Amino acid sequence: MNKIITISREFGSGGRELGKRLAEELRVAYYDREIVTAIAHRSDLAEDYVGQILENRIMTYYPITVASSFAAMPPTDTLQYVNHGIYNAQNEIILELGQKSDCVIVGRCADYILEDYNPFNIFVYADMESRMARCRAKGGKDASLSDKELAKKIQSIDKARAQYYRFYSGRNWGDKSNYDLCINTSGRSIEKLAKAIAYTITNANE
Amino acid sequence: MNKIITISREFGSGGRELGKRLAEELRVAYYDREIVTAIAHRSDLAEDYVGQILENRIMTYYPITVASSFAAMPPTDTLQYVNHGIYNAQNEIILELGQKSDCVIVGRCADYILEDYNPFNIFVYADMESRMARCRAKGGKDASLSDKELAKKIQSIDKARAQYYRFYSGRNWGDKSNYDLCINTSGRSIEKLAKAIAYTITNANE
Repeated sequence: MNKIITISREFGSGGRELGKRLAEELRVAYYDREIVTAIAHRSDLAEDYVGQILENRIMTYYPITVASSFAAMPPTDTLQYVNHGIYNAQNEIILELGQKSDCVIVGRCADYILEDYNPFNIFVYADMESRMARCRAKGGKDASLSDKELAKKIQSIDKARAQYYRFYSGRNWGDKSNYDLCINTSGRSIEKLAKAIAYTITNANE
Repeated sequence: MNKIITISREFGSGGRELGKRLAEELRVAYYDREIVTAIAHRSDLAEDYVGQILENRIMTYYPITVASSFAAMPPTDTLQYVNHGIYNAQNEIILELGQKSDCVIVGRCADYILEDYNPFNIFVYADMESRMARCRAKGGKDASLSDKELAKKIQSIDKARAQYYRFYSGRNWGDKSNYDLCINTSGRSIEKLAKAIAYTITNANE
């Protein structure tokens, strides 16, 4: 069976960078945006559009081609953005990727989707101060937000991730019982953590 | 500043063994029962008696010498067993131990008590099946309990630990934001995990 590592992460915790570095350390494939691209090609939807959905943004517009799948949705306001068609396509692709080779997969409920393949599931988190600092260091739009605005954005993205995960897996996002390892990145170097976690994964399994 | 590692753990998760092995790997002091002994000597209370309190068992008898501290207790039924006098003595000793040398301290709210000393806080957990198997493998009384009785015992001990931690720290026991690393020991070798975590602690700090 392939060695599959899944990473779930709080926004701004450095989870994505950790995933990339971990894949480099372990010399395995890394999947994140690639999944989105693959789904986009398969389902003939525009990549940006699929990306938006996978990033869990509330949809205000959606093309007629996918609108029909909303009919079967539960009438829950908070879940109006969930699109089953895209989730199913994503699900298939994640299963294919997991079967293809050793890999690190970031986000996308991969821990749940691949649970029959005994993945090593990691949850990456950090305190709000560190997450804000990490967002600002990246530059872009986040850097110009006030502290209050940035904290609100971070909380809102995490809330959407939790809802998405809860809807598809029936589990609580960030509940440590779903993961093999939960790591707090506050004040730590992601590069060093990646080396340490690669060592743990390589050595911890019986 | 000394390198202090604190370990909080679910009952039956192997946290104590992990602590001991981690201390060996890192070549630092290990504290667990030793704290109880030290407190017992300092406060002139019988060791068994102090042990009982620190293990969070409900007290039905208590000597007159410590009864006075109950007067200041909140009138909460679930907290009737908490003894401030002993907690304070324990608190002092843990602070002394942390100041004395590098160490691993298991339980006793050490993560909270030593928070000014920047400890590396670990929470050790496992699924119920693994915890029951670990308890049975140890032998003793637990081995003869039915599955239902053993699960009930495990839950009851963890509930008491959570109440104790909550009462003194004001935090939620097992909430990952209190820890640097949370590790799921289900199906894993504690020996290998200890090596991996020792590597993480040695390499993860900036």
